[in-house]
Parts: sequence; C-alpha cells; structure tokens
Amino acid sequence: MPYTVYSGCVVSPSGLSRLSILPNGLLCVDNETGKIVGVHNDSKSAPESLSALLKQWVGKPVDESEIKSVRLKDTQFLMPGFIDTHTHAPQFSFIGLGHDLPLMDWLEKYTFPHESDFKDLDNARNLYESAASFTIRNGTTCAAYYATIHLESCLTLVDILRKRGQRAFVGKVNMVQNAPDFYIETLDETMDATVKFIEEVARTRPEGVTQDSPLDIVKPIITPRFAPSCTMECLKKLAKVAKEHNLPIQTHLNENRSEIEFVASQFPGSDSYAGVYGEAGLLTDRTVLAHCVHNTEPELKMMKEKNVGISHCPNSNLSLTSGMCDVRRFLLSGFKVGLGTDVSGGYSPTIMDAMRMAATTNRALTAEKIASKTGLNEEDTTPLGVPELIYLATLGGAQVLGLESQVGSLEQGKQFDALLIDLETENSPVPAENVTPSVKNEKNALTKWQRRIEQFLYLGDDRNITNVFVNGRLIHSL
Amino acid sequence: MPYTVYSGCVVSPSGLSRLSILPNGLLCVDNETGKIVGVHNDSKSAPESLSALLKQWVGKPVDESEIKSVRLKDTQFLMPGFIDTHTHAPQFSFIGLGHDLPLMDWLEKYTFPHESDFKDLDNARNLYESAASFTIRNGTTCAAYYATIHLESCLTLVDILRKRGQRAFVGKVNMVQNAPDFYIETLDETMDATVKFIEEVARTRPEGVTQDSPLDIVKPIITPRFAPSCTMECLKKLAKVAKEHNLPIQTHLNENRSEIEFVASQFPGSDSYAGVYGEAGLLTDRTVLAHCVHNTEPELKMMKEKNVGISHCPNSNLSLTSGMCDVRRFLLSGFKVGLGTDVSGGYSPTIMDAMRMAATTNRALTAEKIASKTGLNEEDTTPLGVPELIYLATLGGAQVLGLESQVGSLEQGKQFDALLIDLETENSPVPAENVTPSVKNEKNALTKWQRRIEQFLYLGDDRNITNVFVNGRLIHSL
Ligand SMILES: [Zn+2]
Ligand SMILES: [Zn+2]
Repeated sequence: MPYTVYSGCVVSPSGLSRLSILPNGLLCVDNETGKIVGVHNDSKSAPESLSALLKQWVGKPVDESEIKSVRLKDTQFLMPGFIDTHTHAPQFSFIGLGHDLPLMDWLEKYTFPHESDFKDLDNARNLYESAASFTIRNGTTCAAYYATIHLESCLTLVDILRKRGQRAFVGKVNMVQNAPDFYIETLDETMDATVKFIEEVARTRPEGVTQDSPLDIVKPIITPRFAPSCTMECLKKLAKVAKEHNLPIQTHLNENRSEIEFVASQFPGSDSYAGVYGEAGLLTDRTVLAHCVHNTEPELKMMKEKNVGISHCPNSNLSLTSGMCDVRRFLLSGFKVGLGTDVSGGYSPTIMDAMRMAATTNRALTAEKIASKTGLNEEDTTPLGVPELIYLATLGGAQVLGLESQVGSLEQGKQFDALLIDLETENSPVPAENVTPSVKNEKNALTKWQRRIEQFLYLGDDRNITNVFVNGRLIHSL
Repeated sequence: MPYTVYSGCVVSPSGLSRLSILPNGLLCVDNETGKIVGVHNDSKSAPESLSALLKQWVGKPVDESEIKSVRLKDTQFLMPGFIDTHTHAPQFSFIGLGHDLPLMDWLEKYTFPHESDFKDLDNARNLYESAASFTIRNGTTCAAYYATIHLESCLTLVDILRKRGQRAFVGKVNMVQNAPDFYIETLDETMDATVKFIEEVARTRPEGVTQDSPLDIVKPIITPRFAPSCTMECLKKLAKVAKEHNLPIQTHLNENRSEIEFVASQFPGSDSYAGVYGEAGLLTDRTVLAHCVHNTEPELKMMKEKNVGISHCPNSNLSLTSGMCDVRRFLLSGFKVGLGTDVSGGYSPTIMDAMRMAATTNRALTAEKIASKTGLNEEDTTPLGVPELIYLATLGGAQVLGLESQVGSLEQGKQFDALLIDLETENSPVPAENVTPSVKNEKNALTKWQRRIEQFLYLGDDRNITNVFVNGRLIHSL
C-alpha cells in the first residue's frame, strides 16, 4: 500500500523542554519515500474520511484502498527512533569489560588488541552483524559509528548497515602515532584509505538514490580517533578531505585528565586540546565532539563560535572514571547536544541507558551545585526532565549529526524513523497498568501518558520496543 | 530426593575483594533443611562416587538413589541470591516517577498519597504481589522492606512473602508527626500496632519452625520512617520494643541536605541527625541505616562505635538529587555495607542496577578525588571492582541484616539462597560467546569466567536469571 496511517498515541519532541503528546493522534507515512505525510492532533476530530485528510496533505486524491490503517493499542505509543551520536562498532566485541580501568590503560589492554582483529573480514562481519542487532533491537535508528583503521572491514560495516536498514555515519578511524605497532598506519596509508573509503561508499550507494536523499542511509564521516593518535599534519589533511567531500567530522575531546595532559605534551604549540582541532581546521558546524567533560572557558568559547555538536556519553564518562559533563550548562549556552553510548567505554549499547545516565550525571552535578552554592541560577540547578532527556535522545542527536531536517521528531516532511513502544509486553520491565494506579492528580489522557512515558524512560528496555522503522521500513519487530 | 548436587561453575564472595570462582565446582544441598551440605572445588577431581563425598559431608551413608544430580550448562553459573537491604514495598505503585523532584517534595507529592492507599487491603494485596514478583524475578532472595503504617496490610505483605518464599524483614512504618492528616498515627496507635504486628508475625509463623531458624523466612523489623516522622518519645519507645523483642531496626539517615536541616530544626537538643537516633537508643549492631550520604566526622565515629550497617542506595541518591555516598571510605573504615534499591526513590527494583549505580557513584567520586587531589591514598581512589560489587550485593548485605551466618555466600552450612544464571538465554542482553571473543590474555577457564561474570554484572538482567532459590526451594524459574 502506498500509505500507512497510524492512529493512537504519538509522542515527539517539539523543543528542548517541550514534549508533544497526542493521546489520539493520527500519523500518515508515504511508504514509497518513507516520509511522514502529515500528523493530526486528534484522530477523533479528524475528517470522517481518511482520504479527505490525505488529499489535503498529499495534494492529490488518495483512494481508501491505497491506505493501510494501523490502530495502536491502548498500551502503545509511537516516538522518534533513538539517535546514538557516538559509538564504536568494533568495541561490541568486549562490551562490559574493563570498567575498573581509566581511559589510557583501557585503550591499551582492550581497545587496541580487539580493534586490530578487524583486519580479519570474517571476524568483522560476525561482530558487526551482532553490533547492528544489538543497537537496532534497542531502538537506535541512527548511529554515528567509529569503525577501525581497516578499509575493507569499514566497508563491510557500511554494507551490513545498509542491508539491515539502520541510518548511520561510519568513520574509518585514523591512527598514525601513539598506537601499538600491530594497529597503526603511516600518514600516506591513512589518507589513502580514507579517500578510498569515501569513494567506495559513494560508488556502492543504492541505485537511484542521490547523495543528499534521506534514503541514502549510510554515509562516511571523517574520524581522527583523537588528537594523540594523529600528527598535526594528519589532522590538517583530514580537515581538507572533509571540506573537499563536504563531510561531517567526529572525534574525542577532553574526556579524561591524563588524556588532556598527554595531548598538551604531544602538541606543545597548541594552547588547548580543542585548540589542536581548531588549528587543524577540524572544528566546524558539522563536527561531533564526544565527551567534553573538562573544558576551559576559552575552549568553550571557540567551540560555541564554531557551532560544534556535543555528544554526551554519560555511561562511558562514569565507567572509565573520566568525570561528569555538565549538559545543563551546554544547553543553557545554546550548544547542540545529543547522547552517545560510546560502547564499550560505556557498557550499555542502549540510548535508554544513556538517557538514564544523563539524568544520573545531571542529578549528581546538581546536588553538588546546591551543596556548594555554585549554581549560577535556578535554571542551572533544574534537573533535566523527561522532555529534555527524550529531546537529547532524538532531536538533539539529529541536530548534532546535522540531520534535524530529516529525522529526530515525528513531523510532517520528516522521515518515519520511529519506534512503536508497548508498555505491556511479555515480561515487560515496566509495571502493568493495574499495579501502577493513577497518580492522584492524573486528570486526563495527557497526564496519564506523561506518567507512562516517564515509567518507560526509567524502566523500559528492548522488551517494550516492538517495532523499529527507518524511512518507514520495518527493520525490527518483536 | 533428599539431596541435590549441582556440578558446574560456582561463584561466591569469599571476602570484600575476593570472589571465589570454581569453574568445575560441585555443590550439594540438603533439600529438607535447605542447607548447603558441602562445596567441592573441582568436580573433575572429586571422588568417583558422589555418595562417598556426601558421606564425608553428611557424616552418614547416602545412597545414590537419594541424590538428584544437576549438571550446569557451559553458559551457566550459580551465585548467591541478591540481598536488598533497603526498599519500600508499597512504593512499587509509583515506581519510575517523580525523579525530577527532590526528596521532601517527592514525599509529599507521591509517597504519602500512595502509601495511604494501603489501608485498602485489596489494593495492598494486589500491589504487594506485584512487588514480590518484580523483586524475585530479578534475583532478590532477601529484602528489608518498609511497608506502611497500616497493621493489616503489613501482615498481608508478610503473608505474601511467606507464600512466595522470599526471605525478608518487614517493617510496620511509624509516623506520628510531619505527615499529612490522611497518613499519620498517634503515639499510642503506632506503638500499639507495632507490638501487635510483632506478635502476629510470631503467631502466624509456619508450624514446626522456630524463631531462630533460617526456615522462618519473614521477620519483623522496627521501622521509624525517619527522624522527622517521629518524636523523641516515639523513637525511644521503639528502641525499647526492639530491645525487648530482640529485633533489628531500620531507618533513613543523612539522605538529603534539606532533610538534614529539617531534622536539626525538629530536634534542636541533638547535636546531629545520627545523634537523634543515638539518643533514642536506636543505633545498635543490628541497625540498618539507609543512605548516609552527608555525614559529619562525629556521626561517623558514633556509627562505627555502634557497629551499625550501611545500606547504600545509589540509584535513589542520584535520582532524588541527594548526592553521592562514598562507599569506598565506609569500607576502608570497616563498616558493614550492603546495597539497597530504595524503590521508588530509586527507579530500579533490581540489585543488578544497584551494583552498576554503586560503581557509577564510586567512579564519579573517584574522578573528583583524582581531580582535586583529595584522595587519601591509593586505596581510596581504587575503583570498586567486580568482586567488591558482588560482595556488596550478597555477603555485604547479609552482614548488614545480621544474616551472614545463614546466607550471602555459597558455603558449607549456609542456606541455599542462590541464583542460577545463564548467559545465553533467549534475547539475552549479554552478548553470546561467539561475538565476545576471548580477551587476548584469557588463558584458562578462570579468566574466562571472570570475563563472563563482569559482562553479566554490567549487561545482564532478569532474562539471565533462570532459577531463584531460597532455602533450597525453587521460588522462580524462567
Ligand atoms: Zn569513544
Ligand atoms: Zn527509603
């Protein structure tokens, strides 16, 4: 059928601290393009005939026979898919390990040995299939992946994601120094492989799909691992490639204190860690900087001027004893902020966990501000609420990745990258309605759904994610 | 059959930072008493005949026909059940809600209205059944519950837990001041109901089971909600009842700064919050103090002298913006420390989450100590490792509840309160073995199991908890 119409509860961020909840919503998808044709806020007051409404949205007559109608259950709602702005696909191979080590030791003991195994394509295919399964099952419709240094296995990841239907950026990692000899490249090798990777991803683009189309779901992203892995010459060359090919950039910044000291020793000519990237030309409005835990004021000023995006990876920051990133202050300063799982610096592959850990980090910082009376004002000590956490997990992530015109919310004209959530599936970790009696002041359907969404956020898991869509295509169902 | 013998991997804490892992262990349970008859560290080198080994353990001949043999799969291991040292059974009715509110507002908006509904016994039965299901399914074999002020529904909870077979302490909550008029008692009412509760729990004890037997699984615990809810007279009377009936005590301490200020204003004659309890006679070596986030040195000194137990509730402390409790320092000072979910100040009903949040809190504090150079020494900044987290979740909790001679580890003479964990169940959140290739230095079965246990700790959930036993009785299976 050309069109699918969902009627039931539709949830979508409509701003940083505004969550739109339509208990009786109506949402129509064009199955050809995967686009949301229209959203109506009250299916009960919608025109009797769906075709009339569609005619209005589509601009041409639509016959009832062209419409598939899906009525959501009373326990279900639609929401935008989760966007993971920072994760490492090869690191699913040692997920959950080494969380009593700080960053630099953990890189040496786990990361480099495991990532070097991705020169083996069979290994890469097996593990990347698993990474895709885990993230898709947990509702990640879009992710910015770091792969490894190996061209062939990077292309394998692209191929797998295209087949699975997950929207993604994939980065061939660049590492030319401060890495073990079994996992390092020369400058020529890394630049050569990077350009080949970009060309090959373009060459293998599905037929009939243009580069700018949202149907071109997997794209390359320039990915210097982090400053210590690259010389200034390498960083500059990568910035040039990004510019020539009009590509986004991702890297790590200010994650851990010993890392920051190391950068200072490696780049004595630069005045700060962010300054290294600035000097190389890597700070753009399409740059995604993961972590940003320990920033100086001049760094923040430069980052804001360049309009970079912040990928907040709370699980990773806490698990690797890095520290806590103050998302509230980034938001108050007008930064674009999204969430990252940073597998396996973070042990959880799910953005559900990232929302909870973002709340955790925010509460911890807020408690300290209150205790030490260093809160700048009331806004600065207001805990992140449910709307803000969902915003970070969806529309905020889309902004960070430069995709906010295509995805991140369920709005007319955007792609249907969405989740169908059911609160009462088998063994659901969210308690059933009959044991979560209405809160005393729960006056109407809206407050009821507010409660349910909050319980989903704090207690739900993949057992509640019954369907996952990208471009309107069902890529996972329970 | 009188005996069950498990052969396979057996995991158990053998000290604060020592985890015993027997990849080829052998563990025998006396099904009559629920006691662990013996543990052998290598089933492969065990005497050929099981009956010979049992004869040695039991002290009398045991026929093969009396033994049921259970061979664990290569993906399974046994470990002690989780012990939740602090949770509120009625608060499962609003779990996951209100986590953008601080403690005192949250009590008023959610806790008191919901708890007051437990005067309705049908409501209580329905919700307490659900609470038992959630905790048991998540591997909690023993919990210290706060109920509500209502005698009848407290007894309902006792009845449900006895039938379900979960080991527990149940506290009838005492509240005589600073509570809404729909949820408060007079001093006489609260004391009268407390004594009746104790007598009724004793009167309804299963036939043939003595008070000191581990088969008497549900026991009363004296439970002043927290200092603000009780007058000094009330607290003193409760201390007297505890002494007369030889009962443990549980309450809250130093959770949140505004709570601490409130206590100071309510008890101007006391020099500290802990001092209020001390003056009342409520600090004993069988007292469980939840939270203990913000303590003064004199309070810590007094608490240590009285040998109180600390219930660390990291999820709650972070969710209600209370702050972070420094477990590492409590452990270095020799305190008994266990974990608490504190549902629904904490949004998660699982001790798996409590272990992860304890790690999270510890990492955040450690990062700050390193940054501010206030770590007392290397031990003080050593992150809590897997053995310590499992210790807190099991044996540490048993010590806090005064049950360490009966449960908390899988040792000869203790009760078989245990979990059978399977890492490769359907939709397991722990990745399968074929996508977590051996870590480079994984030399033998022991290091392999160390990795698996770490992955279970950080990624597992109730889908991995296939069997739950209390006193050798199977109380849940997948
Ligand atoms: Zn990363
Ligand atoms: Zn509590």
